[in-house]
Amino acid sequence: MNTLETVQLSNAHIDHVGIVVHDLDDALATYCGTLGFRLLERLDAPDHGVEIAFLDAGSSTIELLSPTDEESGTARFLARRGEGSHHVCLAVPDLAHTLEELRAQGVRLIDETPRQGIHGLVAFVHPQAAHGVMIELLQKDRARRLE
Amino acid sequence: MNTLETVQLSNAHIDHVGIVVHDLDDALATYCGTLGFRLLERLDAPDHGVEIAFLDAGSSTIELLSPTDEESGTARFLARRGEGSHHVCLAVPDLAHTLEELRAQGVRLIDETPRQGIHGLVAFVHPQAAHGVMIELLQKDRARRLE
Repeated sequence: MNTLETVQLSNAHIDHVGIVVHDLDDALATYCGTLGFRLLERLDAPDHGVEIAFLDAGSSTIELLSPTDEESGTARFLARRGEGSHHVCLAVPDLAHTLEELRAQGVRLIDETPRQGIHGLVAFVHPQAAHGVMIELLQKDRARRLE
Repeated sequence: MNTLETVQLSNAHIDHVGIVVHDLDDALATYCGTLGFRLLERLDAPDHGVEIAFLDAGSSTIELLSPTDEESGTARFLARRGEGSHHVCLAVPDLAHTLEELRAQGVRLIDETPRQGIHGLVAFVHPQAAHGVMIELLQKDRARRLE
């Protein structure tokens, strides 16, 4: 029996918004050069089929992601929808517990269990469960939380 | 001559993400009932042709918006793209100055000058200027900033 209080996403906060783009260099020229955002981190994530950049946006960040694998879900999203908002990432303290709570509510999940992401454990909620928004849930690595 | 340092959006932070939905009651049942978000504020904004709810998401909020005027831009967006992410709102300290900086960079704006929004002065940047993302810029009312 689950003895933790059921809270689902009531304590979640926006960690970042994910924006899918065709070309990361081009998008960085716009976001950092023209719009003035500060680049925090750029990395290649071949396991996820994307290259990524994180930009400073106060207590949250903006993640620009560009597919490097044309078979990836991100590439298919980009082909279908074009450039723009891809997901909203919510940080939660205990991802396994949150997933358990969401499952109990009948929420449709893309990932039934946490998997390793760039900055911690992640799982995606299906857009059909959130009125068209793909929600990423993130339990940040301890080192990241203490930054 | 502009004597302020040119920073564009380097000091901006994510105030909220805007999500467009067909029916606000239905979306609130999902977001608050099923997903567990806490409702902060619900209001009708006939001047903007929408009804709106703000949900707690840590240091940012989630804005659910539903068109009440079928001729509004929000209604056309919903008809064209379906439910989902609509805009990302960035708070800036001095909106008029930020718009001046963005214009100097050749950034395509929807609003050339600040106009009154729900929580302060607002202006929208055209999605073509930000790789498909509609960016709302917000200079919060002083009372809101001190909350």
